Amino acid sequence: MIIRDKPGILQLLFAVRGSVLPHIALELTVVAGLSVLLVVVDRHLLALPHVSAQPFALFGVALSLFLGFRNNAAYDRWWEARKLWGGLLADARSLAREAEVFLPEAADRHGLLRGMVAFLHLHRCQLRGLAPDEVTRARVAAAGLEVPGVEAALTQISGRVAAAYRAGRLDGFGARTISTRLTGIGLAQAGCERIRATPLPYVYSLLVFRTTWLYVLLLPLALLENSGWMTPVFTVIVAYTFFGLAEVTEELAHPFGATANALPLDAICRAVEISLAPHLGEEAPPPLLPVNFRLD
Amino acid sequence: MIIRDKPGILQLLFAVRGSVLPHIALELTVVAGLSVLLVVVDRHLLALPHVSAQPFALFGVALSLFLGFRNNAAYDRWWEARKLWGGLLADARSLAREAEVFLPEAADRHGLLRGMVAFLHLHRCQLRGLAPDEVTRARVAAAGLEVPGVEAALTQISGRVAAAYRAGRLDGFGARTISTRLTGIGLAQAGCERIRATPLPYVYSLLVFRTTWLYVLLLPLALLENSGWMTPVFTVIVAYTFFGLAEVTEELAHPFGATANALPLDAICRAVEISLAPHLGEEAPPPLLPVNFRLD
Amino acid sequence: MIIRDKPGILQLLFAVRGSVLPHIALELTVVAGLSVLLVVVDRHLLALPHVSAQPFALFGVALSLFLGFRNNAAYDRWWEARKLWGGLLADARSLAREAEVFLPEAADRHGLLRGMVAFLHLHRCQLRGLAPDEVTRARVAAAGLEVPGVEAALTQISGRVAAAYRAGRLDGFGARTISTRLTGIGLAQAGCERIRATPLPYVYSLLVFRTTWLYVLLLPLALLENSGWMTPVFTVIVAYTFFGLAEVTEELAHPFGATANALPLDAICRAVEISLAPHLGEEAPPPLLPVNFRLD
Amino acid sequence: MIIRDKPGILQLLFAVRGSVLPHIALELTVVAGLSVLLVVVDRHLLALPHVSAQPFALFGVALSLFLGFRNNAAYDRWWEARKLWGGLLADARSLAREAEVFLPEAADRHGLLRGMVAFLHLHRCQLRGLAPDEVTRARVAAAGLEVPGVEAALTQISGRVAAAYRAGRLDGFGARTISTRLTGIGLAQAGCERIRATPLPYVYSLLVFRTTWLYVLLLPLALLENSGWMTPVFTVIVAYTFFGLAEVTEELAHPFGATANALPLDAICRAVEISLAPHLGEEAPPPLLPVNFRLD
Amino acid sequence: MIIRDKPGILQLLFAVRGSVLPHIALELTVVAGLSVLLVVVDRHLLALPHVSAQPFALFGVALSLFLGFRNNAAYDRWWEARKLWGGLLADARSLAREAEVFLPEAADRHGLLRGMVAFLHLHRCQLRGLAPDEVTRARVAAAGLEVPGVEAALTQISGRVAAAYRAGRLDGFGARTISTRLTGIGLAQAGCERIRATPLPYVYSLLVFRTTWLYVLLLPLALLENSGWMTPVFTVIVAYTFFGLAEVTEELAHPFGATANALPLDAICRAVEISLAPHLGEEAPPPLLPVNFRLD
Repeated sequence: MIIRDKPGILQLLFAVRGSVLPHIALELTVVAGLSVLLVVVDRHLLALPHVSAQPFALFGVALSLFLGFRNNAAYDRWWEARKLWGGLLADARSLAREAEVFLPEAADRHGLLRGMVAFLHLHRCQLRGLAPDEVTRARVAAAGLEVPGVEAALTQISGRVAAAYRAGRLDGFGARTISTRLTGIGLAQAGCERIRATPLPYVYSLLVFRTTWLYVLLLPLALLENSGWMTPVFTVIVAYTFFGLAEVTEELAHPFGATANALPLDAICRAVEISLAPHLGEEAPPPLLPVNFRLD
Repeated sequence: MIIRDKPGILQLLFAVRGSVLPHIALELTVVAGLSVLLVVVDRHLLALPHVSAQPFALFGVALSLFLGFRNNAAYDRWWEARKLWGGLLADARSLAREAEVFLPEAADRHGLLRGMVAFLHLHRCQLRGLAPDEVTRARVAAAGLEVPGVEAALTQISGRVAAAYRAGRLDGFGARTISTRLTGIGLAQAGCERIRATPLPYVYSLLVFRTTWLYVLLLPLALLENSGWMTPVFTVIVAYTFFGLAEVTEELAHPFGATANALPLDAICRAVEISLAPHLGEEAPPPLLPVNFRLD
Repeated sequence: MIIRDKPGILQLLFAVRGSVLPHIALELTVVAGLSVLLVVVDRHLLALPHVSAQPFALFGVALSLFLGFRNNAAYDRWWEARKLWGGLLADARSLAREAEVFLPEAADRHGLLRGMVAFLHLHRCQLRGLAPDEVTRARVAAAGLEVPGVEAALTQISGRVAAAYRAGRLDGFGARTISTRLTGIGLAQAGCERIRATPLPYVYSLLVFRTTWLYVLLLPLALLENSGWMTPVFTVIVAYTFFGLAEVTEELAHPFGATANALPLDAICRAVEISLAPHLGEEAPPPLLPVNFRLD
Repeated sequence: MIIRDKPGILQLLFAVRGSVLPHIALELTVVAGLSVLLVVVDRHLLALPHVSAQPFALFGVALSLFLGFRNNAAYDRWWEARKLWGGLLADARSLAREAEVFLPEAADRHGLLRGMVAFLHLHRCQLRGLAPDEVTRARVAAAGLEVPGVEAALTQISGRVAAAYRAGRLDGFGARTISTRLTGIGLAQAGCERIRATPLPYVYSLLVFRTTWLYVLLLPLALLENSGWMTPVFTVIVAYTFFGLAEVTEELAHPFGATANALPLDAICRAVEISLAPHLGEEAPPPLLPVNFRLD
Repeated sequence: MIIRDKPGILQLLFAVRGSVLPHIALELTVVAGLSVLLVVVDRHLLALPHVSAQPFALFGVALSLFLGFRNNAAYDRWWEARKLWGGLLADARSLAREAEVFLPEAADRHGLLRGMVAFLHLHRCQLRGLAPDEVTRARVAAAGLEVPGVEAALTQISGRVAAAYRAGRLDGFGARTISTRLTGIGLAQAGCERIRATPLPYVYSLLVFRTTWLYVLLLPLALLENSGWMTPVFTVIVAYTFFGLAEVTEELAHPFGATANALPLDAICRAVEISLAPHLGEEAPPPLLPVNFRLD
């Protein structure tokens, strides 16, 4: 995620990091080349059909509809994913507090919280499609988890609750409170999985990209008549807005990806570790900070 | 559901699977033929009335309104259905964990979880309008359910909870926790039934399709004047965007159907089985994978 | 509610049931007559002022804004009402299951469930503004309710829970679980009442209908110049889309009405009876089916 | 709140009550006068600059964006406020039912419910910015509340619950159930306060009204060329739609005001009294009915 | 936050406080200067290319899409933040009431509530990026908190609950009720942190500002032909609406900032203190009032 203030004049002119331009440079070059070619042909070789701009207005409304919808849907996915991880952070802290109320023995509490930290790192790796990294393996070992799968981690945490309940180290009120918390955590995890496993319907991608290309490739025919040598300029600007939005949409629709706009899961996991450190009687690690305005 | 990355150049040109084109090919052919005919008639036989493009702009705004609304409503149905099944997956896992906390005897837990698996398969078949298939009948038999209806399954699971509670194998906190879980499951089931049984109001379908046809059939009259032989090209492109969106909408509004964009209920049921296997002391089956990019 | 598939060619041409056309036929006739009259006058009697189409474009955007907003608000009311009744169905089933867990005596359970069925029928009649019909009176009698008002029914059900609790036939966990359920039912009932008692702000209706009429009556002046004898055709089509949407909106905003698009409350009440029959040891009645594609 | 059916022909022509016209009559007169003046000047005194309509189209899209956004935000406030009061009605009824289950002594129950009625009347007066009226003071006296502030009322009700719990007249399950109910009531109250205390950001009001005035005052320059003496007609119609929507928005954004579109809080308070009367062993008062189609 | 009524004529003409004009004055000056320059050059020095307005219409639709989306997203952030703080106010009051029901000893209750007040002040300072101010430090001291961090405060409050529970001064029902409340408070806090730490995706800012500048700088070329010396007037008006909306959006997207449109956190913290004073047996402080229409 890019953490930066409102862009100033220099950033507007030159910012590349976090910009969508590098991702659509190829498309824009193709569009620019083709429209220059069309102007040259039309002026010097062969008069092309000059079509009215009217059908493009109709077409443009339909295209805006597609792009606007896709953009809203993509942003909703991104923001929902962020809410789910914000909820996981809150749940981890609440688990620590509730454990202090209902679990009198420190060993029980520590087992729970170390398991929670390991679970979140495992969840982070799974969402990003990575094998558990070094940090994750260390947390799993520290938590004493046996089968290091995401769900298995949650099940083992739950198993520790069950053991404490049956041994009488946790009363009924506490068992219900902590179970409710773990259920909430499982719901957030399943929500993240849902977003990861269910892309925006593919049929929209085809429809949007096909329509955008048709629009941008035909547009010069409508501009030739009145805009002359400004034709490539306007075509590229329109292409920039449409391809730019389509590309942003593509990135935000995958909030757990590796793009500059993906969510900073590492930083959130670290925030959980900082929050839980006092409950574990440990020194809190420093927060992760943006590097080159980017937080991962 | 189609699982595919952002379409590349080849897919944009040739992808058919997951595309809406095959479903609207007939409509597009009719539109193309008619507009070619109109141009021929206008040029060689009889001057047709050339109308201004202005009324089409007005009309186009109204049509965008209809299509945009219908698209949002359809996508919301699809995404709500996906959330409900994601919730069922989370509920099944939570049920397993809560059972470990509150139900000390393995037989009670296994009865609950086997019932849950059977319930989900029955629910899947009912939503798709199918008789219980072989897999489903096997799960029902394994769970020892007597009356294999969707609701009856849930009621029998609940009956097992009641029996354990009365026999003292489940305490009050556990009875309340597991009841709450089953109530959540029943609510998700009723939500899916609601989406299946209540289509988008039929009056919208009539309004949208009638308006789209009127628009597309009259459009050539507006384009004849300025666009000449490009008239059929633009008419078909506009028809492609409008019919395309109407068709996508139609598919997404039925998330439990058999189309390429319907939800992968088989894969979700399998995910539940994988999650519950360790709780049942069984070997987890392999996950279902997309075949030709399609997951069912 | 109309239950029909995607309209085919014949339905697009001829479908009347579920269509909005009969409701706006008068308006369309008036508009058609007036615009024919204007063309005749302009051609043969007196040149009318031909105005530019530009103000209509501006006007059209504002009108789309009104209609689009009203349409979304009306659909949200309709879908919220459907969700509330879907929730009532789920609540009725959950009540039955929870009663089996926490109420050991069948008489207590039957009293609760018979009361629930009577309550839903009373609720249905009240929402539709009808006196309790024969079916409802039979259910009230079967449930042994004394004061057959909607709320009184819920209060008497709650009174039975109170009696069981005080007599020790229901424990604290059960009293809390079933109270929570009844509270959820009361909330859904109040939600339905809210939708019924609070129409969309009247000021919008005035604004929308006044603006639509102004628009449609002035539109021919803009079309006279370029569209000639196509003027009445386009005016009627635009009037069809705008009045059509306004009328759909009017119907969906009253989801408990008696129109073809109102919610099928009878069918939902029957679905509850089917679900509760096994809990009452009774034969389940058959589901209600659409008659001429219409389900009530 | 205006309770009226779909407007008929007479209402469309003449309805004033509930209409936005009286509130914007001054603005419309100013706009009409100015545009007549411009036409006169342009025709007889001094040719004014006739500008293209194109910038107005761009401008109009931006203005629609502002108005559409503000309208949605205002309606959401109004509808959220209505939901909160609908929820308070449901909560009052649930409180009565739950009290019957968990509070065996009538005196305790009556204290709770009389307090609830007084609380709602105090809340109503506070939201409307009124001192407690006669009805409210009577209810406060009947409830035996000492410090008649909104929150103090809720605190005293809660204090009665605490007293009953400590005296053993209420068990733990009941204390938790009734506490949860009071917490829900407090949340709804805080929600209403939030809506009342936090207007839509003032910056939008300035932006919307300034832009609307600029638009409407400059519009005649674009219409002079083609529309002649129809210029004032179109300018007034466009002004009617834009000022009309801005005014509606202003009213709905203040759902607790004294306008015709404000929420009928008196009627909802009465509905609560009718619902609670049987629980208090009292005669239910008659419901409040609309006077001249207006319900307060 | 600006608290002001609907703007009257004088405010429309002159209001600066709460207006967006001062923030975009520089941009508007640049745009005005450039477009005057272009008109002068075109008239007297060198005929510039006069381009058709058509591409601007297409472009304008895309730009509206971006601005509209960003505006909705920003307002949603602002309103969600307001809801979270409204919820914190309600939670603080509920905590006080629930403490009276379940915690018989005043010392326990006072410890909880004083901690809550200190927590909210710490939370306010953190969200605004300030070191704890004098008021906050006083509240922290009064609450006897040791490590004055936001989360540490909540953890210490929770620790007091744990101590009371283990010492038997709080029963299980109460421990569960108050734990649930603290969990809700932690969730609201994490929600505020989420909004503060996660700006709107930076890529949108670049896209919106770059597109707006391109649009506004090229617009004079389209207006030169028909609007003559009105060109700078229209360009500045269009720039006002687009930059104005972009700037409003920028402010609302940071609801915890120091701008005139930021949320009045001081006033909400004071409202909590007023509400809790009676529970602490203290005199309530006066509410904070707007100064020059601004509430902080």
